[in-house]
This record gives sequence, structure tokens and C-alpha cells, in this order.
Amino acid sequence: MGEFELLQTIYDASTNLGSNVTIGPGDDMGEVIVGSNKFLIAVDHLIVGRHVQLDASPEDIGRKAVARCFSDIAAMCGSPVCSLMTACLPTGCDDEWAMRVFKSAKEHSEHWGGPIIGGDIATSECKNAIFTVTAMATPSKLGAVKRSGAQVGDIVCVTGELGNSIAGHHLTFEPRIKLAKAIQESLGEDLHSMIDISDGLAQDSEHLTNEKCSIKLDTKSLPLRTGATIKGALGDGEDYELLFTCTSPPKTDEVTVIGKVVERCQSSIIDYMDAAIDVQGWQHV
Amino acid sequence: MGEFELLQTIYDASTNLGSNVTIGPGDDMGEVIVGSNKFLIAVDHLIVGRHVQLDASPEDIGRKAVARCFSDIAAMCGSPVCSLMTACLPTGCDDEWAMRVFKSAKEHSEHWGGPIIGGDIATSECKNAIFTVTAMATPSKLGAVKRSGAQVGDIVCVTGELGNSIAGHHLTFEPRIKLAKAIQESLGEDLHSMIDISDGLAQDSEHLTNEKCSIKLDTKSLPLRTGATIKGALGDGEDYELLFTCTSPPKTDEVTVIGKVVERCQSSIIDYMDAAIDVQGWQHV
Repeated sequence: MGEFELLQTIYDASTNLGSNVTIGPGDDMGEVIVGSNKFLIAVDHLIVGRHVQLDASPEDIGRKAVARCFSDIAAMCGSPVCSLMTACLPTGCDDEWAMRVFKSAKEHSEHWGGPIIGGDIATSECKNAIFTVTAMATPSKLGAVKRSGAQVGDIVCVTGELGNSIAGHHLTFEPRIKLAKAIQESLGEDLHSMIDISDGLAQDSEHLTNEKCSIKLDTKSLPLRTGATIKGALGDGEDYELLFTCTSPPKTDEVTVIGKVVERCQSSIIDYMDAAIDVQGWQHV
Repeated sequence: MGEFELLQTIYDASTNLGSNVTIGPGDDMGEVIVGSNKFLIAVDHLIVGRHVQLDASPEDIGRKAVARCFSDIAAMCGSPVCSLMTACLPTGCDDEWAMRVFKSAKEHSEHWGGPIIGGDIATSECKNAIFTVTAMATPSKLGAVKRSGAQVGDIVCVTGELGNSIAGHHLTFEPRIKLAKAIQESLGEDLHSMIDISDGLAQDSEHLTNEKCSIKLDTKSLPLRTGATIKGALGDGEDYELLFTCTSPPKTDEVTVIGKVVERCQSSIIDYMDAAIDVQGWQHV
């Protein structure tokens, strides 16, 4: 069973969340109501050797640990409030290295408006360091934008460029917090669903589909990053761009229309020749 | 450098938290103001092979992962709102085992009033599974009780029993959420500081001291768990009981007065013969 399936199986068993949980497991962030306020909360791993190369600088590691979690805030059109960070360090890990990771995480969390206000450090027999960042955020007045709102007839849009993130973008991307807000302000109720692309366009597009709709991608229209192929744009992942569906394009820069939401067909994701696109990014022609 | 020192060094560098952060790094939970509400948030590791034995049941592991983080909520006299859980699983980890851990965590988080509303699962080359639980809570109307409020002349109290937790208590303890509230309601402003005992009475007592005060423990008065010694009560840890200072004892059961807050002397923690008590629990007689 893959990670996503395992998580989904666990979450499907969630039954007793209570009436103050307004967005449960399965979206980019969970949402709860407390008093007169709503809050968003999410957590992400950053595993050295998996989410970053073993030789990545501690500064890049700390930055990315925060950035990938804050990208979830963007995906809900939220505003950062604060964050927490954990480190599970291999026995004998260099203290100075760990401090540089935390210093970078601290600086970037503060820069993006969600300072680290707590955490936990432990050592274990892990081979490489494992970090988590928890982010807490508030939704905008227009509300958090969920993954599940896509409607047949919507256009499908993406911010920035896709593919070949491994060449460097995955270490330098800015969480799209400001752009997400601009998109929501431009579109209002016409913005129906949103997710950030971490696992690749094809796989994350699938999360916007449901039993009523599929997504048809014009693969020739994908905004390719330098060095990227269409297959890479579909499957590489680590783009941390916003993927969203709406009735008409927002009045913002950096957005490309790449497809539309269509009546449900056999496959979740199809191309403009109606051929299935595999969630790994393969087009079955 | 030990974990606590490393964390403290990192946190000491925290400068730019913003005016809405009312309790920063270094307490049991961080606290932020958003709109008209205050929130508490904390995260804790549960590392299999370290915080629980390798042969612990998945049900006990899931329960303890939640319980130890929710004990932080008790230590602030807060009320659970929701939680998040991560799992970093060794490659090839048994899916059913992981599901049983999550199922237990889910049930206990719901039982204690802070349902799991999100999380993240990853695999890595770690030897044993590593979990984190993030808890979000609200402070009571009387406010969160910090570690830092101890005053010379206070009595020092503890809930329940101490020592020999390894015999079983560390897997079955109830986070002291209700008792903490009862203590705060009984004492009001006379409750000055509180922490939960995870690292041992001596070490956690030290967190209540500062440059103005030391803590004098009547080691003969410690409420010993079955099979526990005074040294064990001071140093074993994993008690997850509340340690607090106040002007007079609360009108609740399960509380023992074990010492007093005195003018700062050379050592943070001393016994009634004024001999230093090492933070590891050794009494230097």
C-alpha cells in the first residue's frame, strides 16, 4: 500500500471529529472553529536523503522544511500564524549542522509570517535527520479553498512553471501565499478548488477530481520550466505551484490555463485526445 | 550538547516572534493570539525503541503518542481542540501494524477531546518508526499557566505518584487535563507555575526555578509509585504528573505537597538538609 492509500484508509476511519472540525483529514490543511475564529493546521515531513539530497546545505534544508509546509497554507488561501518544528537527529549528529538547519527554518518562518514558537528534538538510530514542520494559519474572510469543490465546466489553472524542479526550484521556491490570496480576491466565489502541486501535476490533479468529474489537460499548454519535458511537468513533482479550478481566469500574473473540468469519464485525468494520463505522468496514447 | 541545551540554544536565538505570540519557545506549549482567541500549540515525538519498548503493542504506541503530547495541554491548564499525527515508517513496515497505531491514536485523541484532523506519512531508512503528535488547545478563562511564575514562599505540589513508571504507568497514564483544570479553578491566581513531569521530578523541577529562586524538596514526602525508590521518583521520568507551585494547596484529591520555593541558592534543587539534588535525580549528600 502506498503512503497516500495508507493515509486515506486511516482517515476514512475518522468518524468522531466533532462539530467544530470544518475540514477533516484529506485536504491540504485541517480546519477547526474555536469561538469566533477558524483555524487551519497542517504538518509535513522533511526527510534528509528523500525530500532533499544528502549533500544539501543545512540552510536549504531548514528553508525547505518550512516552505513545503507553508505551501499548504497557500493552497488553502490562508495566512500563516505560527509554526512548530521537530528534529529527529541521528545519534552523533553534528550540533552545529542542526543549529544551522533550525536557524534557517526560524528565519524563513518569521519572514513568511509564521514564526516557530515551539518544537521537540530527539535523537534516534535513524540514518539521516528527519524534520517536521507544523503550520497554523487563518483562512481569509472568503474562507479556505478546499480540494473538493471542482465543478464540471470549470477551467483548470496553474501558477508559475512545472517540471525539472530538481534542478534547483525545489530548494528556492517561495510558498505561493500572496499569489493565492490575489487569486482568491480576484475570483471570489468563482474559485472552486485548489491544491499545491507536490507530487506532480497528474497525481495532484487527481485529488481535485471526484465521482462526478474528471480533468482534461491540454498537455501542450503546460508552462514548462527550463529543462522540463511535458512528461516531467506531469510527473516530476516538487513544483509547489498552485493548481486550481474556477469559472474564468483570475486577473493575476503567473497563471496559465491548462485544461478544464469535464463530466466524469473512465479515467480521472485525460488529455485533449481523451487518452488517459497515468497519475505517474505517463500519457497512455 | 544535550537535547534540551540544543533546543534552548536555538530558541534563545528567537527574536522576531511578533506581538501576537504570547508564550514563545521553552514552555510546555506555545501560545498565540488570533482575533479574540488565544491558542496553545505543541508537538512531541514518540520514537519506537526509545519512548516505548520495541515490543510494545501498536495500540499502546498510538495511545502514548497522543497521551504524552496531551499531557502538555494539562500542564498549561488548557482544553484540547484538535491534533495532527505524522509517521515516518521504516521501509517495508507492516501496513497493518501502522494502521493499528493510527487507529489507537485516533480513538484516544477523540476520547480526550482533540481529534486528529490531519497528518503526514513517509517512509525512510530509519530503523524503527518515528511518530509525532501536534496538539492544539485553548487556555482556560484564567489563562495558561506557565513554567516561569514560581515565587519565593510558594509550596511545591505534585499530582499522583512518582517513579517506576517503566513498570507500566508510562503506557496507561491519563493526561491530567481534568485535574489541572480543577487545580486551577481551586487556586485561581494563587497557582503560579506548572509543568508536567516527563524527564523526572528533579530535572523538571529545575525548569520551574530561575535566577531568583531554587526549589527545596522534602524527598521523604514524595508519593512513591509501587516499586519506586526516592531516587527513582526524582530521576526515572515518564510520570506525566503535574508539578506546580502555589500559595496554598488546592482543594482537590491526588495532590501531595513535596517542597517549597526558596530564595535562590547555589543549586537549583536542594533537599531539606540543603544538599544539592542533581538533575539526574542523584542527591549529593
